[in-house]
Amino acid sequence: MFYVLLFSSHFFVCETPFSFFIYSSTFNPIISSPPFSGVLCYYVFYVVTNRMIIVVTPTYKRMTRIADMLRMANTLSHVKDLHWIVIEDGNKTIPAVQDILDRTGLPYTYQAHKTALGYPRRGWYQRTMALKLIRSNTSQILGQDHQEGVVYFGDDDNSYDIRLFTDYIRNVKTLGIWAVGLVGGTVVEAPKVVDGKVTAFNVKWNPKRRFAVDMAGFAVNLKVVLNSDAVFGTSCKRGGGAPETCLLEDMGLEREDIEPFGYEKTKDREIFVWHTKTSTPNIVQSKKNQTKPVPPPDTFGYFVEV
Amino acid sequence: MFYVLLFSSHFFVCETPFSFFIYSSTFNPIISSPPFSGVLCYYVFYVVTNRMIIVVTPTYKRMTRIADMLRMANTLSHVKDLHWIVIEDGNKTIPAVQDILDRTGLPYTYQAHKTALGYPRRGWYQRTMALKLIRSNTSQILGQDHQEGVVYFGDDDNSYDIRLFTDYIRNVKTLGIWAVGLVGGTVVEAPKVVDGKVTAFNVKWNPKRRFAVDMAGFAVNLKVVLNSDAVFGTSCKRGGGAPETCLLEDMGLEREDIEPFGYEKTKDREIFVWHTKTSTPNIVQSKKNQTKPVPPPDTFGYFVEV
Repeated sequence: MFYVLLFSSHFFVCETPFSFFIYSSTFNPIISSPPFSGVLCYYVFYVVTNRMIIVVTPTYKRMTRIADMLRMANTLSHVKDLHWIVIEDGNKTIPAVQDILDRTGLPYTYQAHKTALGYPRRGWYQRTMALKLIRSNTSQILGQDHQEGVVYFGDDDNSYDIRLFTDYIRNVKTLGIWAVGLVGGTVVEAPKVVDGKVTAFNVKWNPKRRFAVDMAGFAVNLKVVLNSDAVFGTSCKRGGGAPETCLLEDMGLEREDIEPFGYEKTKDREIFVWHTKTSTPNIVQSKKNQTKPVPPPDTFGYFVEV
Repeated sequence: MFYVLLFSSHFFVCETPFSFFIYSSTFNPIISSPPFSGVLCYYVFYVVTNRMIIVVTPTYKRMTRIADMLRMANTLSHVKDLHWIVIEDGNKTIPAVQDILDRTGLPYTYQAHKTALGYPRRGWYQRTMALKLIRSNTSQILGQDHQEGVVYFGDDDNSYDIRLFTDYIRNVKTLGIWAVGLVGGTVVEAPKVVDGKVTAFNVKWNPKRRFAVDMAGFAVNLKVVLNSDAVFGTSCKRGGGAPETCLLEDMGLEREDIEPFGYEKTKDREIFVWHTKTSTPNIVQSKKNQTKPVPPPDTFGYFVEV
């Protein structure tokens, strides 16, 4: 009979009962009476090298930010081996955001980098700062137990299926690309896959780009990031204003490098990430003192970013 | 020295080393030489009777529904002892929604009840059906390990802090009320608390209601639900069109019954639920065949509710 004792990084396989003989130093068998009986165990030690998922999230102060960050935190905290880099577009980090990050139990880095002159205020500068951080602090971000990583740009108002991280991003060897819902003026943007290779992009907006993909629709292996110094610039003409194709081209990637995910079925294909937007609430402003500046709404001691 | 071995429903406390004597049957001590040495253990078995949290979510087909349900599922699946009742406004349940519920690992009930004639299409009828289900299938929803429960009406597009469930809802003995962010035309609606009692409501819209609270801002103990046959009607004049105060009044509740949560601090009070709305995406429709009905957008084999 076999027994297996499983632990997180090692296991035993034991065979019992087991009768054995004692050999003399000259290898003449001496049969004991009765034979010795015992347990034979094999000890196996192994190391699981899950790639570390490095999620880069630019964020900024707005009324719906805490709500959006809460939902994203509740999603990411289901994923093991994930380092969350959050970059605030501002001069300082915000305690309420840091509290959310603390409660995830995830390893994280939270820094403030106010958008520099010339950059659009759409997270480009913050993602650039994150790329520089990943290159300068690789071992700190990977942690002791990881040799490999994958970098993903995940905004705080998107909606994520946990399988995006566990089934897609974790398995990206070079450049992974998948469908994104509710983006680019259409219900879904997706790579067009023929014989396992991406030949074009099923998108409405600017389909001629080498990489016609939204920020939420790709991830790159850490080695690609480390082998290049590509960052988000202040503009991207090749992308028609969208920065994704410039970054990936500047990293030296070609369409042939793309590993498509989630295309295998011919119908009822699943979307694992949605480019949702949270509506800005319609706050009724007081009509009094119309000649003076409108005071901020009363929050009754509650923390709201107004 | 003491050792404690903790398990989910029992623990051991052991004291070691421990020297003991052997007594004869006549209780004359016989001191062994040397004294016996061993471990003395106390075995403690206990049962945790967490109240079951029963979350009622009306839902309906729309482009952003799967994304919203995903985020809510990722939040609720962190909470133990929670039964999720999801009622579809339609003639049948949707496999993609059921898949999301399956993946949570939570006990759940998913039914379809199309809004009946005369009801506004805002979840009132679905919540009524859920209340009837809770009353008719109480033991099935509570499960074997629970004697008590709390009912909460949680919409699928709100944003929830996990502590709403673990710190607030779980502890509701009769009627719990707390702040809700981004609702009622203002940044926060909250109960006004004086000496631990709710004396009024800090809301902009219709503050004279007996219970001036959004659906997301209260929960009622299951015994209150079971001791009444109150449901959501087809209208609520006392609520100025909002159904909350009618339901709570019909359940026989008074302001004195309110247990306020989260008011203890005087500043930096935290909001645990946000009445967020997901924007309806702006889908660019094809200009061709303008005389014919516009065909649904191409989804390239991906499942999107359009």
